[in-house]
Amino acid sequence: MKRAEDYKKSIGSLRRPVYYRGELVSDVTSSPATAPHVNAAAETYAMAFEPEYEDLALAHSELLSRRVNRFTYIHHSPEDLVKKIRLLRAMGQRTGTCFQRCAGWDALHTMYILTYEIDQKYGTTYHERYLDFLRHVQENDLMVAAGMTDPKGDRSRPPGQQVDPDLYLRVVSVKEDGIVVRGAKAHQTGAVNAHEVMVLPTTALREEDRDYAVAFAIPADTPGLTFVFGRQTNDGRKLEGEGWDAGNRRFGMVGGEALIIFDDVLVPMERVFMLREFDMAGRGVEVFASTHRQSYGGCKTGVMDCLIGATSLLAKYHGVDRASHVRDKLAEMVHLNETLFGCALAAGLQALRTPSGAYMAHPLLANTVKLNATRFIYEIARLAHDISGGILATLPSEIDFRHPVIGPQIRKYLQTAPGVRPEDRFRLIRLIESLTGTAALVEVMHGAGSPQAQKVLLLRQANLAHKEQLALRLCSPDA
Amino acid sequence: MKRAEDYKKSIGSLRRPVYYRGELVSDVTSSPATAPHVNAAAETYAMAFEPEYEDLALAHSELLSRRVNRFTYIHHSPEDLVKKIRLLRAMGQRTGTCFQRCAGWDALHTMYILTYEIDQKYGTTYHERYLDFLRHVQENDLMVAAGMTDPKGDRSRPPGQQVDPDLYLRVVSVKEDGIVVRGAKAHQTGAVNAHEVMVLPTTALREEDRDYAVAFAIPADTPGLTFVFGRQTNDGRKLEGEGWDAGNRRFGMVGGEALIIFDDVLVPMERVFMLREFDMAGRGVEVFASTHRQSYGGCKTGVMDCLIGATSLLAKYHGVDRASHVRDKLAEMVHLNETLFGCALAAGLQALRTPSGAYMAHPLLANTVKLNATRFIYEIARLAHDISGGILATLPSEIDFRHPVIGPQIRKYLQTAPGVRPEDRFRLIRLIESLTGTAALVEVMHGAGSPQAQKVLLLRQANLAHKEQLALRLCSPDA
Amino acid sequence: MKRAEDYKKSIGSLRRPVYYRGELVSDVTSSPATAPHVNAAAETYAMAFEPEYEDLALAHSELLSRRVNRFTYIHHSPEDLVKKIRLLRAMGQRTGTCFQRCAGWDALHTMYILTYEIDQKYGTTYHERYLDFLRHVQENDLMVAAGMTDPKGDRSRPPGQQVDPDLYLRVVSVKEDGIVVRGAKAHQTGAVNAHEVMVLPTTALREEDRDYAVAFAIPADTPGLTFVFGRQTNDGRKLEGEGWDAGNRRFGMVGGEALIIFDDVLVPMERVFMLREFDMAGRGVEVFASTHRQSYGGCKTGVMDCLIGATSLLAKYHGVDRASHVRDKLAEMVHLNETLFGCALAAGLQALRTPSGAYMAHPLLANTVKLNATRFIYEIARLAHDISGGILATLPSEIDFRHPVIGPQIRKYLQTAPGVRPEDRFRLIRLIESLTGTAALVEVMHGAGSPQAQKVLLLRQANLAHKEQLALRLCSPDA
Amino acid sequence: MKRAEDYKKSIGSLRRPVYYRGELVSDVTSSPATAPHVNAAAETYAMAFEPEYEDLALAHSELLSRRVNRFTYIHHSPEDLVKKIRLLRAMGQRTGTCFQRCAGWDALHTMYILTYEIDQKYGTTYHERYLDFLRHVQENDLMVAAGMTDPKGDRSRPPGQQVDPDLYLRVVSVKEDGIVVRGAKAHQTGAVNAHEVMVLPTTALREEDRDYAVAFAIPADTPGLTFVFGRQTNDGRKLEGEGWDAGNRRFGMVGGEALIIFDDVLVPMERVFMLREFDMAGRGVEVFASTHRQSYGGCKTGVMDCLIGATSLLAKYHGVDRASHVRDKLAEMVHLNETLFGCALAAGLQALRTPSGAYMAHPLLANTVKLNATRFIYEIARLAHDISGGILATLPSEIDFRHPVIGPQIRKYLQTAPGVRPEDRFRLIRLIESLTGTAALVEVMHGAGSPQAQKVLLLRQANLAHKEQLALRLCSPDA
Repeated sequence: MKRAEDYKKSIGSLRRPVYYRGELVSDVTSSPATAPHVNAAAETYAMAFEPEYEDLALAHSELLSRRVNRFTYIHHSPEDLVKKIRLLRAMGQRTGTCFQRCAGWDALHTMYILTYEIDQKYGTTYHERYLDFLRHVQENDLMVAAGMTDPKGDRSRPPGQQVDPDLYLRVVSVKEDGIVVRGAKAHQTGAVNAHEVMVLPTTALREEDRDYAVAFAIPADTPGLTFVFGRQTNDGRKLEGEGWDAGNRRFGMVGGEALIIFDDVLVPMERVFMLREFDMAGRGVEVFASTHRQSYGGCKTGVMDCLIGATSLLAKYHGVDRASHVRDKLAEMVHLNETLFGCALAAGLQALRTPSGAYMAHPLLANTVKLNATRFIYEIARLAHDISGGILATLPSEIDFRHPVIGPQIRKYLQTAPGVRPEDRFRLIRLIESLTGTAALVEVMHGAGSPQAQKVLLLRQANLAHKEQLALRLCSPDA
Repeated sequence: MKRAEDYKKSIGSLRRPVYYRGELVSDVTSSPATAPHVNAAAETYAMAFEPEYEDLALAHSELLSRRVNRFTYIHHSPEDLVKKIRLLRAMGQRTGTCFQRCAGWDALHTMYILTYEIDQKYGTTYHERYLDFLRHVQENDLMVAAGMTDPKGDRSRPPGQQVDPDLYLRVVSVKEDGIVVRGAKAHQTGAVNAHEVMVLPTTALREEDRDYAVAFAIPADTPGLTFVFGRQTNDGRKLEGEGWDAGNRRFGMVGGEALIIFDDVLVPMERVFMLREFDMAGRGVEVFASTHRQSYGGCKTGVMDCLIGATSLLAKYHGVDRASHVRDKLAEMVHLNETLFGCALAAGLQALRTPSGAYMAHPLLANTVKLNATRFIYEIARLAHDISGGILATLPSEIDFRHPVIGPQIRKYLQTAPGVRPEDRFRLIRLIESLTGTAALVEVMHGAGSPQAQKVLLLRQANLAHKEQLALRLCSPDA
Repeated sequence: MKRAEDYKKSIGSLRRPVYYRGELVSDVTSSPATAPHVNAAAETYAMAFEPEYEDLALAHSELLSRRVNRFTYIHHSPEDLVKKIRLLRAMGQRTGTCFQRCAGWDALHTMYILTYEIDQKYGTTYHERYLDFLRHVQENDLMVAAGMTDPKGDRSRPPGQQVDPDLYLRVVSVKEDGIVVRGAKAHQTGAVNAHEVMVLPTTALREEDRDYAVAFAIPADTPGLTFVFGRQTNDGRKLEGEGWDAGNRRFGMVGGEALIIFDDVLVPMERVFMLREFDMAGRGVEVFASTHRQSYGGCKTGVMDCLIGATSLLAKYHGVDRASHVRDKLAEMVHLNETLFGCALAAGLQALRTPSGAYMAHPLLANTVKLNATRFIYEIARLAHDISGGILATLPSEIDFRHPVIGPQIRKYLQTAPGVRPEDRFRLIRLIESLTGTAALVEVMHGAGSPQAQKVLLLRQANLAHKEQLALRLCSPDA
Repeated sequence: MKRAEDYKKSIGSLRRPVYYRGELVSDVTSSPATAPHVNAAAETYAMAFEPEYEDLALAHSELLSRRVNRFTYIHHSPEDLVKKIRLLRAMGQRTGTCFQRCAGWDALHTMYILTYEIDQKYGTTYHERYLDFLRHVQENDLMVAAGMTDPKGDRSRPPGQQVDPDLYLRVVSVKEDGIVVRGAKAHQTGAVNAHEVMVLPTTALREEDRDYAVAFAIPADTPGLTFVFGRQTNDGRKLEGEGWDAGNRRFGMVGGEALIIFDDVLVPMERVFMLREFDMAGRGVEVFASTHRQSYGGCKTGVMDCLIGATSLLAKYHGVDRASHVRDKLAEMVHLNETLFGCALAAGLQALRTPSGAYMAHPLLANTVKLNATRFIYEIARLAHDISGGILATLPSEIDFRHPVIGPQIRKYLQTAPGVRPEDRFRLIRLIESLTGTAALVEVMHGAGSPQAQKVLLLRQANLAHKEQLALRLCSPDA
């Protein structure tokens, strides 16, 4: 298994074009824009060497007959899916942000299940091929970025009816030793600091769109790949002073999402895990959705623990921590957060066995988690703003604080409860600002699928017919 | 174990004063006011003999070295507390209402833990004494009513400072062979059709209120006990026609709550499980609260399954089931319901071991469940009203429907989608009315404690100090 | 103008079949089922003779050149529509329930506008004919019931495609001196104690459904009319003891809604105000909707004032009125209620002039009021339940309270803060139960149209195109 | 009256220290950090010369016997307070942000009322003195910044018990011709581009804190004043490229809030409007609160019109504008926005006359507006995020878009519905990001006082005693 430093070194040495604000980033591990995200991902490596997390951070791989970093492990029991949530919460508490390894992990898990089921249906041998790849990932403790979401162009049209056929990633040609793909994947978490990129279809597909039914994994430095690093809220602040105005200075905001462009990339055949089995694309989406939506009740609750703690502390700094309305709001924040966590655990506990032997999170409960997250995280953020006060929107810059003339004045006038150092307060304010920033909220809204996708799946899983029978029994004349 | 019919017979033969609307009820199993509640409780007996529920409805008692009805069993693992929730949901789906055996079950569980802990602290022998009682309950498959909530008088004053000292139940005198108690317990679920009444203190107590620190169990026909059966919403309708206007005709609304009056009742010493150990009262409340609050994510979700089904069916009857807003609202109802269920399962999964060896539901998650219930069940009811239409408030009576002149007119004008019999629609409307009746909602609000009690406990359990440390780490200068 | 007693006398002497629970009601002013509703409506007459309400309860009619009861007056300025709301709130505060005269008033107003506009389009003379009727109403101070909502059968089909063509009220034949109509109107507020019934189409209509495009007014004792009085929550309790268990004993719950059946009723031509002008039906619905939806911010806020007051008082009786969470919840109840009121006033202030010279409430704001009511009233009720406690669902009956044996015990054990008489507390509890009863809530949900109808109208009125232009201006390159 | 250009010129020529990010801003009208805010404020001048806004933007001043810019006018009727709201909405629609002139306007209004009332009580002559100042403001069409909020230090302590006595602004000494003040005012909207700064106490005061009871107005370039311009969300982006990444490029985000430091500033006596009349400070807060809280239903609804429009347009660009869930969410956004607007109008309509002859917005309704804003604006933002999609959090920078290599790729892959230019979409995305940025939301939360302040005032104004009487009447035995 890799240590945090091994991970950074291996990522730092990757050569591929990464653009940010019009420039090529030479080394993502040192560029101020990307380094925090590398730091966050590195914690997934660090934790695996800490004895107190042994049970959560490691798991026994049957494939290697040894323990591996759990972020490369395939869940084989409900208990595994419960441990996943506990691990993610611990990681969220540690980083206060997205640590980026879940999407790829969940994609790994999805393809394990999907390749098995495609083989069952079509007599193909994807699963064995896939196991080779998985072994490689586990042996080298690789970080995999998931390439799930296509740009989608006009959302009212299927892939093949877009103005440009490349608006969904597709197979351009099939060669003896591999396939050539073109297109892009958008909003990809951890993309610029992953070793591998794993691509899956983003939607159920019809026969005429079979060229869009493709899944594969390739090293991040494969020729033809380009990465465009997106902007986050207040991203420019990482470059100023010590960087405290950026908030979560060390680990950054959200997951360093990037647009990945595939410009006629050649994928060797041993890395192709689905090729034109269009009718299985929907199943893949369903498995990935359940798997990834459950995750939000882990990582986000950990991040929210940081926010709740920061807010509670700021209330103390301000001298309002004993006000009954402040206590009521803190209780509400905790309540919402634990509701998310509880449902995510339950989605693990109620996990379903798939034909491959792997378990997937309970779809109904997993969708419940994600839908609640799109509401509760916003409400927790709103309550944090309520308790924190207007200073969240008007605090002068760190540079002002350090200014010889105006700095002392700021310190004088923005001091609060006795014994609280103004700079400690300022750092906390910036942390709260960062934890509730637009990009952080939007990620919760749309990561793992938008709310409407959850509603649709919820209803599909709800078994209304059974509930109708229950009602009928109760009001039948001979009840 | 008792069969449903055995249960009814045993209850029917009990002799004790039960008042309802100014009259003594001679047999609660046949009086229209009380019979539905007896029917609901009887299902807890019936289910134990149905093979498909074997795993949920039965459990192995170490005490008897045989399987017992789970409603008399003490949870000894997280899995037990998960099964409890599954059992309760199945029961709720079956009865569409409170089946009344949980409060007593949760009291049984609480006293198991509490007697052990009192003995640990004071060297008393309550636990052994208690095990004798528990054995008796399990052997005879008894239904126990919990006597938890005192009338409380002026809520701003402790027990001993009330105008009347009896506003909390108390020890009036201690004799050689037993104690004499006086007072009342209010809102007691299943009280008029239980075999035993088990009393616990309702609040933490101070030394000056030590006479209020008392716990015991007595047969329901002990001299000095009087029961006053409360009114439910639309209770009078049970007496009209076939009774369909009452809604859930067979199983009734809520739990047949009653006021139990203890008029200098003599409790034999072998049935006394706590006597003036005032400093342990708070612990009892905490254990009972966690245990009972978890339950609401089981029974109520089952009841709500019936409501969701009824609403879905009525939408079909009305021809609106495909409208996008109706589907969206049904999805929302399911979503809220599964959120409750998920948290309740998680409160079991995260259960804590107590010194007695029994497990209690995780306090933080259990309180989350109950607090959500006080919001979500109201919202589910609101959505049911939204989809159902105004007819819910204006439907003519069953008697009108059966009237030779006006009946045919009602049938003509209140028909809906082709093939739907008006009377089937009317029954369904009355069921929805009953499932969302005031008493049903209020029970969810206040059963197992009012929302503010949950908020207080949530905050106490939240460990804000730990969360503050997480935040501090993230924004420390050397982060 | 009629005094309250004149009104009652005039209603009591009406002869027409009114059914309730399988029996013909001989006199609605004395039957316990209907008398409370008569009392509530009578307050609209009483208020007109009280000097302090002069400005609100009376208005100058140009038609009669004298002051009339405002409930028969046509709004001719924004100020009139503001006064309407103030009047309705005062009436709601007085009766704690629906006083039933608004629906007919709003229908009077709608037909004033609509007849004018039909004449403009078709050269008909409905408006003049209508003014004769209006003069009759104002001169005799009549109460008019609106017949708006058809039973609708299968909601997915238009009137003419129902299994039974009578599921929407329709013209069966046109004669020299009148028309014959058949069908029914459901959920009609105040129907059994109104002098006149005024019928309007309930939906926009297409040409093939032109026989359903009919509006008229007839005396309530016209041959062929039958009334079936619907059940309300806890309606049976009005017959017990003094009746306090029914809650709002004097004025009842909701508006005494009834099903009105039109069995080939002959309507004289001078009372026909629309005949087959199908393309104007939609306009009528729109005008009625805006007019009636505004009203909900008047009457309901008055009723909620009673509920908030009752809850505040009960909190005092229980000794919890100073608890910070209770005060917070009371503030929330007030906040929601004033939000409703404010929007209703604004819908008056922003009223639009119609070609007839009459003003209609601002459609966007009026729909906002009603949609908020379907949420806020439920939430206010929920908060009332929260503060009131479980006793709301378990209180013994009034008859028990009066019982020689059990009564004194109930009084002893259900006493609360010193000086509070138990019976005063019980009456208050029953009032809260009644103000938050299912029928009361459902009426708010569906009266004046269901929430989805408001959503549809809101969007239609929203002028998104204008808002899009605002956005475009802000982000255009040359902004 | 000043034209927009006059305004800018007059502000550009002001000399006083303004700090931002560690540097002195030489000219706020040209610095990229501050210029957008100047532009926004300038619109209040521009509108006064546009004929279509004549009725809203101008008002007749009795003081000058001529029309003045309404932003300097004192409301003398309910109608004035209704027009204020219409004007603010129009301004919000035009600028999509805070245009900063309300806080000062509301302070002007408050001091008009307060000086009159102090004189009445103490026989002072503040009001006359104040009228001289007001005349000066109206004649020269000045922009006044309100200095309301003190830094407050430890919120659990009153002014005089802080570690540093300057944490609330106070009178240091009284001289013949003026007073010397020291302290600071935080979060001051429009402070760096106003002509005058007007200071009021921020809280009710006790006698021992009489030195904190001081109100005055001074020119912004008075010696001893220093301004520290706060950071807004994504403020750095104003400096990049054309600036589209900043969103509302021309008018900026929120109100350019600043910290104003008063370092022993001499205020001439003719500009002192309150001096140690500590018992009137609370009244000032109450008047200012009602006045300013009403405003939020004007300006914010205008800004939200821009957001709703932007979201609606983006939905079209994405091809999802016809999806039923998108339409439902847009309807909800409109609904919430109109609710705010309606209550603000009503707070004007119900305005109360003060002894001075000026009217103040109805306190109950004004607080309702503000409290709703702290919830609804967040919810509207959440819905905007929901509809807009994940691109809101991951869009590459404007500079990337303009890059010769990566720009064309971005344009290719981020194109959507046919005919939509990618750059138009990107600008819109950035606008939405900016309209829902943290600083924008926090301003709504805390501007004009935090939610708890509204709750407290709501309850104080609620007249619960009257409501209790209503309830008592309904359930009295002789009702």
